[in-house]
Amino acid sequence: MKALVGAVLIGQSGGPTSVINTSALGCIEAALASPNITRVYGAAHGIKGVLDDRIYDLTQEDREELSLMRYTPSSVLGTCRYKLTDFLVDDTDYRRILDIFTKYDIRYFFYNGGNDSMDTCSKISSYLSQHNYECRVIGIPKTIDNDLACTDHCPGYGSAAKYVATTLMEVGRDAKVYDTGSITVVEIMGRNAGWLAAASALARVRDKDLGPDLIYLPEIPFDMADFLSDVSRVYNEQGDVLVAVSEGIRDKNDTFISSYFSDSTSETDAFGHSQMGGLAPNLAEFAKSKIKAKVRGIELSLLQRCAAHLASAADIEEAYLAGKAAFEAAESGLTDKMVTFERAPGGDYRCTTGLVDLVEVANAEKKIPREWINEAGNGLLQPFIDYALPLIQGEPDRPLENGLPRFTHLKRVQASEL
Amino acid sequence: MKALVGAVLIGQSGGPTSVINTSALGCIEAALASPNITRVYGAAHGIKGVLDDRIYDLTQEDREELSLMRYTPSSVLGTCRYKLTDFLVDDTDYRRILDIFTKYDIRYFFYNGGNDSMDTCSKISSYLSQHNYECRVIGIPKTIDNDLACTDHCPGYGSAAKYVATTLMEVGRDAKVYDTGSITVVEIMGRNAGWLAAASALARVRDKDLGPDLIYLPEIPFDMADFLSDVSRVYNEQGDVLVAVSEGIRDKNDTFISSYFSDSTSETDAFGHSQMGGLAPNLAEFAKSKIKAKVRGIELSLLQRCAAHLASAADIEEAYLAGKAAFEAAESGLTDKMVTFERAPGGDYRCTTGLVDLVEVANAEKKIPREWINEAGNGLLQPFIDYALPLIQGEPDRPLENGLPRFTHLKRVQASEL
Repeated sequence: MKALVGAVLIGQSGGPTSVINTSALGCIEAALASPNITRVYGAAHGIKGVLDDRIYDLTQEDREELSLMRYTPSSVLGTCRYKLTDFLVDDTDYRRILDIFTKYDIRYFFYNGGNDSMDTCSKISSYLSQHNYECRVIGIPKTIDNDLACTDHCPGYGSAAKYVATTLMEVGRDAKVYDTGSITVVEIMGRNAGWLAAASALARVRDKDLGPDLIYLPEIPFDMADFLSDVSRVYNEQGDVLVAVSEGIRDKNDTFISSYFSDSTSETDAFGHSQMGGLAPNLAEFAKSKIKAKVRGIELSLLQRCAAHLASAADIEEAYLAGKAAFEAAESGLTDKMVTFERAPGGDYRCTTGLVDLVEVANAEKKIPREWINEAGNGLLQPFIDYALPLIQGEPDRPLENGLPRFTHLKRVQASEL
Repeated sequence: MKALVGAVLIGQSGGPTSVINTSALGCIEAALASPNITRVYGAAHGIKGVLDDRIYDLTQEDREELSLMRYTPSSVLGTCRYKLTDFLVDDTDYRRILDIFTKYDIRYFFYNGGNDSMDTCSKISSYLSQHNYECRVIGIPKTIDNDLACTDHCPGYGSAAKYVATTLMEVGRDAKVYDTGSITVVEIMGRNAGWLAAASALARVRDKDLGPDLIYLPEIPFDMADFLSDVSRVYNEQGDVLVAVSEGIRDKNDTFISSYFSDSTSETDAFGHSQMGGLAPNLAEFAKSKIKAKVRGIELSLLQRCAAHLASAADIEEAYLAGKAAFEAAESGLTDKMVTFERAPGGDYRCTTGLVDLVEVANAEKKIPREWINEAGNGLLQPFIDYALPLIQGEPDRPLENGLPRFTHLKRVQASEL
């Protein structure tokens, strides 16, 4: 295949993670090293930056400063939740994208995000090819939710899982120091899949008295009466209860439990996902209606997705690999693919990258297998532990200054101003 | 002075910290090494364990497992918030304490806590000496609030401060990744003194674009209109605002701002402190009434006091020293004292221990000097940074297993059952 010479554009999309920049770095460093690449650009706030012609020339960045992206959480290029309409319905955005790609001679486009982002990637790729604009489009997976189809796991999940497990071990210690009885409910991100809340089960790997006593996931219909009876049982046994709960738990009619407690004015984002919150304190208060204990609700909020100080070395290494593999796939002539992770069979954990068609992952969701959840639907079984534990291994050698993280500072020179 | 031979009792009191066990370990290991000590006991749930005769014989513990207390957060012996009445009013509890001390021949009593605990210590010491029971009583300071009088700083503060600063750097990155405008309010513990919320200013030591734009402390009367105008100004300048706020901010009439938003049924603990919460989301929503931005409230909750994974090595070392110094002071014949930290003058940070009379610290509170806070009362000045930065230095070599913290597991053998 003839080498395709031109510029690279990378964008970041959706909720950030501890390692989304690590993946971008893997892709950027591979591109900078390639003789086929004339320029490496970053889109400000994902596809919105393309539409607004806010494109950073990453070739201008100091390489050492750039390399700190490996340990810097959140999207250094900025992110967005912008949904492209179908171009058969309205092609305004697509015409603009084609203009900008042409302007900067972008021949390689990488989009780092979750399933919504893979949908964006796929639509852009189709449009460009229908307009005979040669551009290789590869998606780089990213999500703390770990819900992308066709991949063993997702970059970002391991670090968030390590944060959740460590935090639940610590909170598990803290919540039990008084002898007055307590019920603590911790709310963990995960709208439709419970992978991250399930990671709280890792807190019990060594110590059965640590970590959550009960774990509720969106995969299992949630019943308020069952919850109360579960909590009562544990409380009566041990005098305190630690509950981990996915933000997305819902009842048998698919109604979010969080909506039981919120007024009707709750907001929705551009993808129609409603903004959630307040579930933990509300569930804790609900438990209190039956059990006269001290209750506390804790929402891990943004902390669980940006805690780079607890990133797993395995996740960092794999996230970098995913970005690098994306560039290599594109350079080798492939397009319309997303990088995947494949776990080698056998006891020792080994992970390699693969590729899958974008359309296979766009808008699909992977949930926790029912057989990894206990029969009562309030805890995880050994197969989940075996799956998740390798992903949280290793402490990265993150750079520090004055006892605090040293994050990257990019110049972010606007290409349009050069 | 003739050596006093007998048993040691140590108790933990008040809210736990990342290093409260480190101080206990410093005291316990020094005691176990002393020829004057017949037994080392730990009180379950502080003074309540004494009253209930729930006393652990720590001499039975495996020394290696015990040594893991250095890195284990929260009170391994259990804690309490139990206020002793004045023995001139009712001496029931004191008579019981004297009985238990006599039963176990306790001649050294160490109490690890905040100012309420020093008050408890002081009362017990007075009662025992009035009843001619020879017992040396030394307080070991502990509080993430850093509000104890007569000491440069308190064990537990440095680690909590490191957690707050690191987290605010990470959240500062995360909260600004969208270009849609955002206001994020982070609520930090601190009822009457703002030391811990002030530590969020450390997030800006290197990067002025990271960390909180505005910091509100209980030391400065809080005004809702000023808050709105501060937030508006920053929002108009940069399109996003990160606010750090002490849970204990109050208006010029000394009314807690949190009480503006809570119903009248809020609980109080045994010391009459009211339980707080919900301040951050409420302030965020209040800002939204004027500024049409995406808002988010984050409460650091228990996480900030139990995040041993981010403990500062300096704090761990000093916390251990405080416990050791407490035992050494008692063994040398002193009583009725609390261990203090003294900072050597000059540029290089050096910390040594001292002693102060218990009555000097009991129920006193140290606040942030006004001249360390900016004129507008919404930020910290360099003298605070110079004070706090040394306290968060160093990464401890904490033991891990399977990528997760390895906490201590004590047998906690009940002395009454031996």
